[in-house]
Amino acid sequence: MSFEAPTKDMLFNIEHLSGWSRVSSLPGHDALELGDVAAILEELGRFCVEEIAPLNAPGDRVGSQFDAGRVTLPAGFKEAYAQFVDMGWQSLQHPEEFGGQGLPRSVGAAATEILNAANMSFALCPLLTDGAIEALLTAGSDATKASYLANLVSGKWTGTMNLTEPQAGSDLALLRTRADPQDDGTYRITGTKIFITYGEHELSENTIHLVLARTPDAPVGVKGISLFLVPKFLVTAEGALGDRNAVHCVSIEHKLGITASPTAVLDYEGATGFLLGAENSGLEYMFEMMNAARFAVGLQGVALGERAYQQALAFAKERVQSRPVDGSSREAVAIINHPDVRRMLMRMRALTEGGRALSAFAAGWQDLARHAETAGDRAEATAFSEFLIPLVKGFCTENGVEIASTGVQIHGGMGFIEETGAAQHYRDARILPIYEGTTAIQANDLIGRKTLRDGGETALRFAALIEQTEQELLRGSTTAQTMAARLSGAREAFLSAVSYVLQVGKQDANAAFAGGVPYLMLAGNLMAGWQLARSLLVAEAALARGEDPAFMTAKIATARFYGDHILPETAVQRDRIVEGADSLLSAVL
Amino acid sequence: MSFEAPTKDMLFNIEHLSGWSRVSSLPGHDALELGDVAAILEELGRFCVEEIAPLNAPGDRVGSQFDAGRVTLPAGFKEAYAQFVDMGWQSLQHPEEFGGQGLPRSVGAAATEILNAANMSFALCPLLTDGAIEALLTAGSDATKASYLANLVSGKWTGTMNLTEPQAGSDLALLRTRADPQDDGTYRITGTKIFITYGEHELSENTIHLVLARTPDAPVGVKGISLFLVPKFLVTAEGALGDRNAVHCVSIEHKLGITASPTAVLDYEGATGFLLGAENSGLEYMFEMMNAARFAVGLQGVALGERAYQQALAFAKERVQSRPVDGSSREAVAIINHPDVRRMLMRMRALTEGGRALSAFAAGWQDLARHAETAGDRAEATAFSEFLIPLVKGFCTENGVEIASTGVQIHGGMGFIEETGAAQHYRDARILPIYEGTTAIQANDLIGRKTLRDGGETALRFAALIEQTEQELLRGSTTAQTMAARLSGAREAFLSAVSYVLQVGKQDANAAFAGGVPYLMLAGNLMAGWQLARSLLVAEAALARGEDPAFMTAKIATARFYGDHILPETAVQRDRIVEGADSLLSAVL
Repeated sequence: MSFEAPTKDMLFNIEHLSGWSRVSSLPGHDALELGDVAAILEELGRFCVEEIAPLNAPGDRVGSQFDAGRVTLPAGFKEAYAQFVDMGWQSLQHPEEFGGQGLPRSVGAAATEILNAANMSFALCPLLTDGAIEALLTAGSDATKASYLANLVSGKWTGTMNLTEPQAGSDLALLRTRADPQDDGTYRITGTKIFITYGEHELSENTIHLVLARTPDAPVGVKGISLFLVPKFLVTAEGALGDRNAVHCVSIEHKLGITASPTAVLDYEGATGFLLGAENSGLEYMFEMMNAARFAVGLQGVALGERAYQQALAFAKERVQSRPVDGSSREAVAIINHPDVRRMLMRMRALTEGGRALSAFAAGWQDLARHAETAGDRAEATAFSEFLIPLVKGFCTENGVEIASTGVQIHGGMGFIEETGAAQHYRDARILPIYEGTTAIQANDLIGRKTLRDGGETALRFAALIEQTEQELLRGSTTAQTMAARLSGAREAFLSAVSYVLQVGKQDANAAFAGGVPYLMLAGNLMAGWQLARSLLVAEAALARGEDPAFMTAKIATARFYGDHILPETAVQRDRIVEGADSLLSAVL
Repeated sequence: MSFEAPTKDMLFNIEHLSGWSRVSSLPGHDALELGDVAAILEELGRFCVEEIAPLNAPGDRVGSQFDAGRVTLPAGFKEAYAQFVDMGWQSLQHPEEFGGQGLPRSVGAAATEILNAANMSFALCPLLTDGAIEALLTAGSDATKASYLANLVSGKWTGTMNLTEPQAGSDLALLRTRADPQDDGTYRITGTKIFITYGEHELSENTIHLVLARTPDAPVGVKGISLFLVPKFLVTAEGALGDRNAVHCVSIEHKLGITASPTAVLDYEGATGFLLGAENSGLEYMFEMMNAARFAVGLQGVALGERAYQQALAFAKERVQSRPVDGSSREAVAIINHPDVRRMLMRMRALTEGGRALSAFAAGWQDLARHAETAGDRAEATAFSEFLIPLVKGFCTENGVEIASTGVQIHGGMGFIEETGAAQHYRDARILPIYEGTTAIQANDLIGRKTLRDGGETALRFAALIEQTEQELLRGSTTAQTMAARLSGAREAFLSAVSYVLQVGKQDANAAFAGGVPYLMLAGNLMAGWQLARSLLVAEAALARGEDPAFMTAKIATARFYGDHILPETAVQRDRIVEGADSLLSAVL
C-alpha cells in the first residue's frame, strides 16, 4: 500500500491546462517559477508519503474514539498534524497578509489532492480549516480577521463548518439553531448540529466553529440565516485562550468510511458567538465557502482515484494467475496481462487523469477570477470557474466511487478482505458524492444558477472553445483526428442537452431537473475529455521534440482511451435528458 | 429496515417469462399449480420476513467469531437455521428421490432470491449446500448418494465448496492440494484451502466439504484435478457420525461485508477423502456445480437490489427536505417528489426487476434443459440456459453493487452512518461480482464457450426471438412501439458485438476478450430489457382486461423507464467492443 504523489502529471496540468503563462503573470504570483512549484509539490509529496500515508490504514482500523465529550484520534495523527503545521502546509494558498504563502489555486489544488490521496481522514481537518479561512476572508470584519486568521492560516487553530441539523440536511431553510443577541454585541447560540467534521478533537489547541443560525426575528427560510463564529475556547483581547465556550460534543458517528475523521454531534447550549458580516446574509457567505469546499471535495474524488489506481496497478503487476488468452505463454502470467484487467486499470487511470485535468483547468480560472487585471476578464473567469465547480464536485466524486469499486474488483477475493486495504478506499469514497451537497444538489446548481440564469451563455462559450480544440486536433495526427471526432460528438450531445434545458427549464422545471444528474455527468465527461484532448496535443508536440517520451506516450494513450471508451457515454446521457423525462416523472413510486 | 418479499412480481415472471405452461407440463412438475407456487413463496416470504430478515443488521454488527478452531455465528442464527430445516426450505428444488420437493428451478430461483434478500449472510449456508447436492447428484456413486444426499437435502448437514488456495484463485490450474490414495480406497487430503464459505460453524451437526485436489501422478494444470468428498465427521456404515476428520479451521477472514457468513481458511492434514466420479474429472463436475452456484449468485445480486430498493423507497417517502423545483409547494416535501430521487429509485427498480425477469427466463430454460421430452428440445434449452448463466451472474451482480450504492446516495448523509443499514448492502454487495468467478471470468466464458464455440448460433437464435417480440410490440400501443425501437437498437448493437467477436475471436484473442465485459453487460442489458418488453405486452393486455391495474401500470412504467434509460447503454458498449480494443491493448501500464 505504498503511495507516490503524481507530481509530474500535476505539473504538466499546471503548465498546460491551468494557463500557467497567464496565472504566473498575475499580481502576487509573478515571482513564482514553475520550478518553485515543482519543489513545493515534491516536498509535500515526500512528507505525505513518509508521514501521512502510513497512518491511513491503521487509522481506519481503530477510528476516532469518543469518551465523555473528548475525542481521541488514532495513534500518530497528533504528531503528524504538528509536523504538518510546523512545515507550513496549511498556509499554502492563503493570503500573505495573514501569514500565508499566497500560492495560486492551481498549485493549491495539486497540494490538496496529494494530501487527500495520502490520507483522506487526516486531510479533512486542514480542508475544513481552509473553508473557515475562506469564510472569514469573505465575511469577517478587520478586527475578527486580526483575531483569528493568523492562527487558522498557520494551522495552529482548526476550523469547522456547522450547517446540518437532524431535520436540515440539503435543505438549509429548515434549520432551527437560535442566535439570541446580547447587550455586549455577542450572541448566545443554542441548538444541535450534526455531521460536523473534526467538530471535536485535540490536534489543535482551539477550534473555530462557523455556525449557521437564526436570530429571533429573522425571516423564515434561507433568507433568515446568519453566520456566526463560535470558538471552542474564547479568545481574550490579548489573543490568549480564555474560557471554554458552551459548545460540546455529545457523540461521534459510526461511519462506513473515513472512520479516523471524527464526525461530531455538537450541542450549543447558549455558546458565545460572534456575528460574521451582515445579519441574514449567512447563506451567501456560506456559498463562497462552499464553492471552495465543493471544489476540494472534487479533488478528494481524484485523490482516492489515484490512490486506488496505484494500489490496483501494483497488485496487478504482482499477482500471477491464469495463462494469457492469446496462448502466448504456457505459464500463468501477472494479471496485468489479461485484457479485462487492462481495461479496468485504463478506465481507472483515464477517469483519474481526466478528473485531475478538469480540476487543474478549473483552478486556473479560479486564479484569474480573483486576480485578472480587468473587470471583464475577472467576470469571464468567474463565470467559467463557477460553471466548473459542480462538475468537479459531481463528476469527480461519482467517478471516485466507481474507481474505488473497480480497485476492489481487480484484487479479486483479496479485495474483499479488509487487510488488503482496497476496501477502505471503497468505503471512504462513498461519502464524496454526498457531503458538501449531493450530486443532485450540484446538478440543480448547474441547471439553475449556471445554465438557466445566463441563458446558456457560459455553456455556449465553453462549446466554442471546445470547437477550437477540435480544429487543432483535425490538423494533427490520426490519433488526434479520432479524438476530434469523439470530442465533437460529445460537444454536440452537450449542446442538445443545453438547448433542452433552456427550452423546458422555464415552463417545466421537473422535466429539466429530471435530467440534472445526467446533464452534470455529460458536461463533466466532456470537459474532462476536452482537457485530455488538449493534453494530447501538447504531448504529441513534446514527443515530436523528444521530450520525456515515456510520460508523453502514456498521456496520449490515456487520452485515446478516454476518447474511445468514456466520451461516448455522453450520447446515452443526452438521450436520457432529452427523451427520458416523461418515463421518469410519470411512474408511480 | 422492514422487508417484504416481492412474491407478486415473481409469480408474474414465473407465469409469463419462465414458460410456465411448458414447465408445468414437464414430467415431475405436472401436478403443480400456480396457486401452489404462490402458497409456497408466500409462506417462505412470511418466514423470512419474521425470522431471517431481523437477524441481518444485528448479524452484520457482530459478525462471525473465531476462537481456537471454533466459529460462532451471531445470536439467533442457529435457532433460525433449525427452523429453516424443520420447515423443509432446503429441500425445495431437490429430487424427491432424496427427500426433496422436486420443484422447478423457476420456483427455486424465486425462493433463493427471497432468502438472500432477507439475509445474504444467512442464505449463503443453504446456497453452498445446494451446490454440494448438485455435485453429488452429478458425480456421486449410488452408495455415496445414499450416504450423504438425504441429510444434505433436508439441511441436517451442510455443504461447502473448496476450490481456492492462496496461489490459485480464478486460476484453478495452479492448485496444489494433494490427494494420496490409500489401500482402503480412500484418499488422504493435504493442503490449505481459503475463502471457504461456511467452512466451519455449528449450525449443523456435520459439514460435507467438496474439495478439489490432485492425485500424485495427475497431469499438470486443470486436467489433473479430482473432486473429493471430505466430511467434517466421518460417517459410519450405519450412517451415524464417527471420528472427527483431519480438517480444521485455522482462521476466518475479516471482510468488507457479509460479516456474519464465516469465510474460513481450512487446513487439510491428511484428512480422509472419498473420490467423486472419475479421477481427473474434477473440474468438469465442478462446472456443473458452478453453473448452479453462479446462477444463485446472480440471484443474490437481484436480492440485494430489491432489499436496497425497498429501504431507499421507504426513506424517500418519509424524509422531508426542500421545496419542489416546480414551485408546486411552499413547504418542504418528501424527497421522493424530487426528480433526481425519482430517477435514482426508478433506476434501482428497473435494474432489479430487469434482473429478476432475466433470472426467471433463465430458470425456465434450466427446467426445460433437464426435463423436456425430446433430446432436441433439451439440447436447445441447454444452449439457451448456458448462454444466460454468465449474464445472470455478471450483469445482475454488477448491478447489485450499483443499486446498493445508489441506495446509500438516496439516504444522503444518513446513508453513510452504519446504523441506517443502507451501508451494509453496499458492503455486502461488493463480493458478488467477485466470488464464483469474477465478471471477467464470466465474460471469458460467454465469449469462449458460449459464443465462439457454436459460431454464434445461440446468440443469433436469441436475436431472432427478440425480433419476434419487436414485431409484437410494433402492433401495440405507442409505448410498445417506442419499446420496439429501443429493443431493436439494442439487438443491433448486440449483433454488431457478436459478429465482431466471431470475426476477431480466432485470429486476435486479445482484441476479442478486451471487449468481454462490455459484451457481457450489453448482452445482459438486452436480455433483461427483452424480458421487460415481454412483460410490457403481458401487462398491457392484462390492463385492457382490467386485471390488477396498480401492478400492471407499475410494470409498464418500469419497462418504459428501462427502455428509455438503460437499453441505450448498449450503444456505448458496442462502441467499446468494436472500436475500443486498440486503445486498450496498446497502452503501456
